[in-house]
Amino acid sequence: MAKILVIHGPNLDLLGRRQPEIYGKVTLQKINNQLKDLAKRNHIEIEFMHSNHEGEIVEAIGKAKDSFSAIVINPAAYTHTSVAIRDAIDAIDIPTVEVHLSNIYAREEFRHTSLIAAVAKGQICGFGINSYLLGLEAALRLIENK
Amino acid sequence: MAKILVIHGPNLDLLGRRQPEIYGKVTLQKINNQLKDLAKRNHIEIEFMHSNHEGEIVEAIGKAKDSFSAIVINPAAYTHTSVAIRDAIDAIDIPTVEVHLSNIYAREEFRHTSLIAAVAKGQICGFGINSYLLGLEAALRLIENK
Amino acid sequence: MAKILVIHGPNLDLLGRRQPEIYGKVTLQKINNQLKDLAKRNHIEIEFMHSNHEGEIVEAIGKAKDSFSAIVINPAAYTHTSVAIRDAIDAIDIPTVEVHLSNIYAREEFRHTSLIAAVAKGQICGFGINSYLLGLEAALRLIENK
Amino acid sequence: MAKILVIHGPNLDLLGRRQPEIYGKVTLQKINNQLKDLAKRNHIEIEFMHSNHEGEIVEAIGKAKDSFSAIVINPAAYTHTSVAIRDAIDAIDIPTVEVHLSNIYAREEFRHTSLIAAVAKGQICGFGINSYLLGLEAALRLIENK
Amino acid sequence: MAKILVIHGPNLDLLGRRQPEIYGKVTLQKINNQLKDLAKRNHIEIEFMHSNHEGEIVEAIGKAKDSFSAIVINPAAYTHTSVAIRDAIDAIDIPTVEVHLSNIYAREEFRHTSLIAAVAKGQICGFGINSYLLGLEAALRLIENK
Amino acid sequence: MAKILVIHGPNLDLLGRRQPEIYGKVTLQKINNQLKDLAKRNHIEIEFMHSNHEGEIVEAIGKAKDSFSAIVINPAAYTHTSVAIRDAIDAIDIPTVEVHLSNIYAREEFRHTSLIAAVAKGQICGFGINSYLLGLEAALRLIENK
Amino acid sequence: MAKILVIHGPNLDLLGRRQPEIYGKVTLQKINNQLKDLAKRNHIEIEFMHSNHEGEIVEAIGKAKDSFSAIVINPAAYTHTSVAIRDAIDAIDIPTVEVHLSNIYAREEFRHTSLIAAVAKGQICGFGINSYLLGLEAALRLIENK
Amino acid sequence: MAKILVIHGPNLDLLGRRQPEIYGKVTLQKINNQLKDLAKRNHIEIEFMHSNHEGEIVEAIGKAKDSFSAIVINPAAYTHTSVAIRDAIDAIDIPTVEVHLSNIYAREEFRHTSLIAAVAKGQICGFGINSYLLGLEAALRLIENK
Amino acid sequence: MAKILVIHGPNLDLLGRRQPEIYGKVTLQKINNQLKDLAKRNHIEIEFMHSNHEGEIVEAIGKAKDSFSAIVINPAAYTHTSVAIRDAIDAIDIPTVEVHLSNIYAREEFRHTSLIAAVAKGQICGFGINSYLLGLEAALRLIENK
Amino acid sequence: MAKILVIHGPNLDLLGRRQPEIYGKVTLQKINNQLKDLAKRNHIEIEFMHSNHEGEIVEAIGKAKDSFSAIVINPAAYTHTSVAIRDAIDAIDIPTVEVHLSNIYAREEFRHTSLIAAVAKGQICGFGINSYLLGLEAALRLIENK
Amino acid sequence: MAKILVIHGPNLDLLGRRQPEIYGKVTLQKINNQLKDLAKRNHIEIEFMHSNHEGEIVEAIGKAKDSFSAIVINPAAYTHTSVAIRDAIDAIDIPTVEVHLSNIYAREEFRHTSLIAAVAKGQICGFGINSYLLGLEAALRLIENK
Amino acid sequence: MAKILVIHGPNLDLLGRRQPEIYGKVTLQKINNQLKDLAKRNHIEIEFMHSNHEGEIVEAIGKAKDSFSAIVINPAAYTHTSVAIRDAIDAIDIPTVEVHLSNIYAREEFRHTSLIAAVAKGQICGFGINSYLLGLEAALRLIENK
Repeated sequence: MAKILVIHGPNLDLLGRRQPEIYGKVTLQKINNQLKDLAKRNHIEIEFMHSNHEGEIVEAIGKAKDSFSAIVINPAAYTHTSVAIRDAIDAIDIPTVEVHLSNIYAREEFRHTSLIAAVAKGQICGFGINSYLLGLEAALRLIENK
Repeated sequence: MAKILVIHGPNLDLLGRRQPEIYGKVTLQKINNQLKDLAKRNHIEIEFMHSNHEGEIVEAIGKAKDSFSAIVINPAAYTHTSVAIRDAIDAIDIPTVEVHLSNIYAREEFRHTSLIAAVAKGQICGFGINSYLLGLEAALRLIENK
Repeated sequence: MAKILVIHGPNLDLLGRRQPEIYGKVTLQKINNQLKDLAKRNHIEIEFMHSNHEGEIVEAIGKAKDSFSAIVINPAAYTHTSVAIRDAIDAIDIPTVEVHLSNIYAREEFRHTSLIAAVAKGQICGFGINSYLLGLEAALRLIENK
Repeated sequence: MAKILVIHGPNLDLLGRRQPEIYGKVTLQKINNQLKDLAKRNHIEIEFMHSNHEGEIVEAIGKAKDSFSAIVINPAAYTHTSVAIRDAIDAIDIPTVEVHLSNIYAREEFRHTSLIAAVAKGQICGFGINSYLLGLEAALRLIENK
Repeated sequence: MAKILVIHGPNLDLLGRRQPEIYGKVTLQKINNQLKDLAKRNHIEIEFMHSNHEGEIVEAIGKAKDSFSAIVINPAAYTHTSVAIRDAIDAIDIPTVEVHLSNIYAREEFRHTSLIAAVAKGQICGFGINSYLLGLEAALRLIENK
Repeated sequence: MAKILVIHGPNLDLLGRRQPEIYGKVTLQKINNQLKDLAKRNHIEIEFMHSNHEGEIVEAIGKAKDSFSAIVINPAAYTHTSVAIRDAIDAIDIPTVEVHLSNIYAREEFRHTSLIAAVAKGQICGFGINSYLLGLEAALRLIENK
Repeated sequence: MAKILVIHGPNLDLLGRRQPEIYGKVTLQKINNQLKDLAKRNHIEIEFMHSNHEGEIVEAIGKAKDSFSAIVINPAAYTHTSVAIRDAIDAIDIPTVEVHLSNIYAREEFRHTSLIAAVAKGQICGFGINSYLLGLEAALRLIENK
Repeated sequence: MAKILVIHGPNLDLLGRRQPEIYGKVTLQKINNQLKDLAKRNHIEIEFMHSNHEGEIVEAIGKAKDSFSAIVINPAAYTHTSVAIRDAIDAIDIPTVEVHLSNIYAREEFRHTSLIAAVAKGQICGFGINSYLLGLEAALRLIENK
Repeated sequence: MAKILVIHGPNLDLLGRRQPEIYGKVTLQKINNQLKDLAKRNHIEIEFMHSNHEGEIVEAIGKAKDSFSAIVINPAAYTHTSVAIRDAIDAIDIPTVEVHLSNIYAREEFRHTSLIAAVAKGQICGFGINSYLLGLEAALRLIENK
Repeated sequence: MAKILVIHGPNLDLLGRRQPEIYGKVTLQKINNQLKDLAKRNHIEIEFMHSNHEGEIVEAIGKAKDSFSAIVINPAAYTHTSVAIRDAIDAIDIPTVEVHLSNIYAREEFRHTSLIAAVAKGQICGFGINSYLLGLEAALRLIENK
Repeated sequence: MAKILVIHGPNLDLLGRRQPEIYGKVTLQKINNQLKDLAKRNHIEIEFMHSNHEGEIVEAIGKAKDSFSAIVINPAAYTHTSVAIRDAIDAIDIPTVEVHLSNIYAREEFRHTSLIAAVAKGQICGFGINSYLLGLEAALRLIENK
Repeated sequence: MAKILVIHGPNLDLLGRRQPEIYGKVTLQKINNQLKDLAKRNHIEIEFMHSNHEGEIVEAIGKAKDSFSAIVINPAAYTHTSVAIRDAIDAIDIPTVEVHLSNIYAREEFRHTSLIAAVAKGQICGFGINSYLLGLEAALRLIENK
């Protein structure tokens, strides 16, 4: 039975409290619940991790190799600064989907560049909580097509 | 009953024949068929247009205002060069989803910048035909949330 | 009797409906009417064309050589991307006035550069419908001074 | 009765002697006379000031607040270097029209950028003495529309 | 019997009238005649198309796949702005030769970069009408060497 | 009673030993003592945290929301690289003062850009230990003015 | 008895009237009064000068050498353009504190670079009138530490 | 007896599994063993640490001051993003040798710039496991020459 | 009788052995032989020189003034770095044709810029040995048209 | 009898006191005396002006037209920022020699660019007081060659 | 028996006399002697060449193909400017080690970029004479691993 | 008795024949004669060398150390490309004066940057043959002041 790892990057624990005009009022808990439902409906296992630490995310990806079929990651602020997360994704052989709640291309200039995008299979951004749900569906289809 | 317009940009009529190592072997016909099925399952109308002409795409968007609830667009080459299409999307009040078959961030430098992204609601790229299907689902949810 | 060609670029047919906070509520029809009045008062002929197609604008300019004494053009989105329109203006020997409804230098960075400006006689921007009327007056004086 | 301030920036006192191939043979005196005539025909007062000193122009703008309805300014060389004049225009609440004798976009690279343009209502350039006359007309219409 | 498609980009219909100091006095008709002669001498068929429309050029290239052995293209202004034409050339499997009447590297900065060059087999520029004739010879040799 | 959080970024535990020609001989302990004295004299509570870990600083800021009235932060090396700390400050609603011991604008080029500055209320740099003391005073006044 | 020179750059005489959403409602007079009080409490003399003229500021700094122990300067618009003021500060041997009412790093791109910062002892920005008061305190401590 | 600290940066624990076409099949364990042998032959002590956490590497360097004579560091992904590690190396007074398994100058553009190189004594890259062995020899000679 | 000088730049003596996937298997000897045949058929004299030394190429061009009617040059690596060769070509009054075996615009970024192109009459690249043969024909026509 | 105007830019009145490691200990008085001697020996008149005000220098140049045969100018800080002085020099028809005490190309990056150089006849820098003396000699020869 | 070529680039004959604060007091003779000793101890032949001429270095590399197993090169100034040396290394099939006496990344900006690095196997810099000795060892291991 | 070396860079042997609109009609022989006269009048020895070879110029400078008191160099095209000549000048301890016949700052963009300027004592450009004569005088004064 396929198993998918969902990684939430820095500051996403503040969701619901953080700039609602950009991120909406949804909480991380609610996102995880909806993802769990969707996973169940598709008969796959799902696991979550959130970390503000670049190093912990790097480690989670490195260890994912043997236990997961795909990764859905919202690298948040590390999208724009972390070569280490990029290298981790590149080092393992698991299809990875990059998601963003907000449309990063409609925000500050420095958010227009993703260091992660080139090593991910694809990217989904701008649909709020639906970015995660569509990202999970994308991951499912990547597993099917392997 | 909601109605969605799907716009295919330049050269997409060559799909299936064009660089299969990047775009796969799927044809535009097959993409449209799968989108039609998905639309039917969701009880919405769907319409397609393909054009190699920037001006025709601009016009299609300008006229969409009164007949469509959402647009799914793969601007292809015009993603990187057309301020006119950007202005057209910006001028109307219909949520627009930008999709790409390939991961544009893993290709040539000049494909990393989308003039469209900042005025679209969100972007989905890298999942082949699934970029369209996920894009249609994203559009459906944008309509629901309005 | 002198004859002036007024060219409206892409999306200008949407005027009145498109972002009124930037472009005001005036329609293309109203602009043309006011220009016609001003032309009549100055005893010159005037002709209008609107196109969303870069190629059609290129052709209109190329053919203007033998029938018109001056051109007033609002290249809109093509201001920033069309070398072809620039070349067309450069190729004919008719004084050309570039006009813009909005102040392009107070908008997004990519609108600060006009490919057309260097081959036009001069540029007028930021005065809404008055940009056209002043542009027509400028054209009249260019004809007089020839 | 409305009153308009016309500001001539550095080196414009040399007009008529300075590079006639770029600026023509018209003198500042002649420009002012034609502007006076146009003002009289439109029943408005007009005042002129010329300065080679950035600081004097800054002060003239700062003091204009209470006595003038609009400003027509040819910032000449300070167009490209003066944040102080930009700040002065931005600080007062009077519509300002930027004019240039020559087409600054057809000259050296460093003249293509105007620090003033973003805070002016609009810009007119390239029509020689007519840039001033059209600028005055633009100012009149801005006053009318207030 | 091999067949070659010659594509003339925007404004080339103005040849002979357009800036003779750059492009000479030769007309498009004369270029085509000389190319026809050269083709006849080499026992190959030749076909011409001229368009000011980016989209029409894209389509002509897309359809060339099945009927032509090589393409000689002067993309003119679209050389510097059209990703769509680049993609069309890249999408088909026919050797393409890029030609320019003038030496684009001795003109304005923005003409030094060709979006087409990287997907063409080679480039010939600066020799006036001879650029086309040499381009046709190059195409002939590319066909022979296949 | 107001409470202020003082955050010391990476390598600041080396103070007193690290490049005294740039940072002086003061230790972190001494800085904290002087800040405590100043806080006591102003009848406010103060708390300190030092970390070399970007993630720990992100977390400290995220949790500060409910317990502190203001933050004084010396992000040190993370000033120039951490979007995550920027996002954390932006996500909470507490006035933040950025301080630096050295004048970052008189050092290497890459230290001239602060990712933090745009989301902080203000910045104080170049006064050694006094940057902290002035920063604390600035924070006090921001609290008073709320 | 120590004496400090406070220099106000261009447009600061407009304070209270100029963009209150950025600069607040405080007037220059009020800033000077509060600085005078603070100076008196610290038993130092204080002198003020305001000028819109780059050259006058350059001269004031050049002459400060023999009469003042420190300078507090708000170079305003000249922050970003004046090499002359930079050279003047660099030429004398008096500690100089750069202050700004607004947070220059949260405004337009061209305000992010200070030509003055590298030759000042330190910089304080973003705290409104408090930037001046903290700047004066910083100057006092620089004098004490000499 | 001299003691050398060897630091392995992020993702190096994946060696042997990660992109063998770039990094070869050697594991971190094998690298450490060969380094231990070389250290023993040279009668020096050697210690290893690996971390995916920037903060932990910063701390290890900060604490190295009193116990080690030299550092050999492969900063991996942090090479290109960590000012904090740079500052840590700069803050202590121990000669540091930067090593890389791959030739970073023959890879992606963003890997061509090392923030670490300017504060290290020297750099060795491109020789696989031999980069470490040569790095250790370089460190030995730096200790001898002190 | 016209005489043409053919100049081969650095490393071209390695042809046939050097990267055959880029340059093919043809040797310099073979290129020269084919050029000689073509020259003979056109009743012109031809001379060859190869040098790895920038200075020797500069001298050959400088001396060509009195003996040759045209130059065909493959500047190879010096294309991108030699202002001296550019100046030499510019200094003499002989039409010069720049040729390249490979398509320099489809290779590394730094090969996209030719310092020579702006002073040559035209450029031919990408056709292997045919680049030379077409270059010689281009030179012949330039001589005819003088 | 020829007459030469020597213009000293901002901060040069501080010479002798200002950074002697860069500018030496010579005073402006001494420079003027040596220039007077050299002028006398060459039977020409000489006049001096110093100003910290950009506008005064602009005016001095504008008025020089009728009374002077040549200008020797050390624009100091305005070298790098003044388009107005550039325009003034460009507007009059008097040969102008730009001089600098220090080698501006061996100092900060922003001093490497002179806005004045392109409109001066020539430039002399780096020889301390001798830059002025050589500059005067250069001016003499320019007058002779007219 | 393996044979290694050591190439010393321009100005290296001045070693010992040239800027000892950067390059130390070692002479080229001494470097060669130590390399010879090391080569003898490893039972390999070694040959040296020094040249100030880019062309001679290009030729030496081109001829090395048949006689040498590896190259150790210090390209000195040509590191940053020679595409010709890069092409020569790329053209032959011999592993090449790039060495530098000084740490080029701790010097002027323009020395941070090596045109050679991307085609060398690896790079060693910053260790003075030891850069050569480590470079020779690296070359030995490259030969062994072939 | 002092001895000065004058170095003429590439293409200067073409003087008199090369672009007289830029370089005038003077020949290298005439320049040398005038320099010889000036040297004789000042009782110093003078020696000349001209080379088109970067390497020969590097060597001439390297050997100058023991025989010459100063160097006057016109690096011509190598001004903009030769780090090797820069390093040679930097390596010896002889004051060097950089001269140019033309005003390099009034020509193409790429001629505005001199790699030599930062290591020369000073630079003189734009005065034709007088650049050399003034350069020799400058060298004399540098020798006197040593």
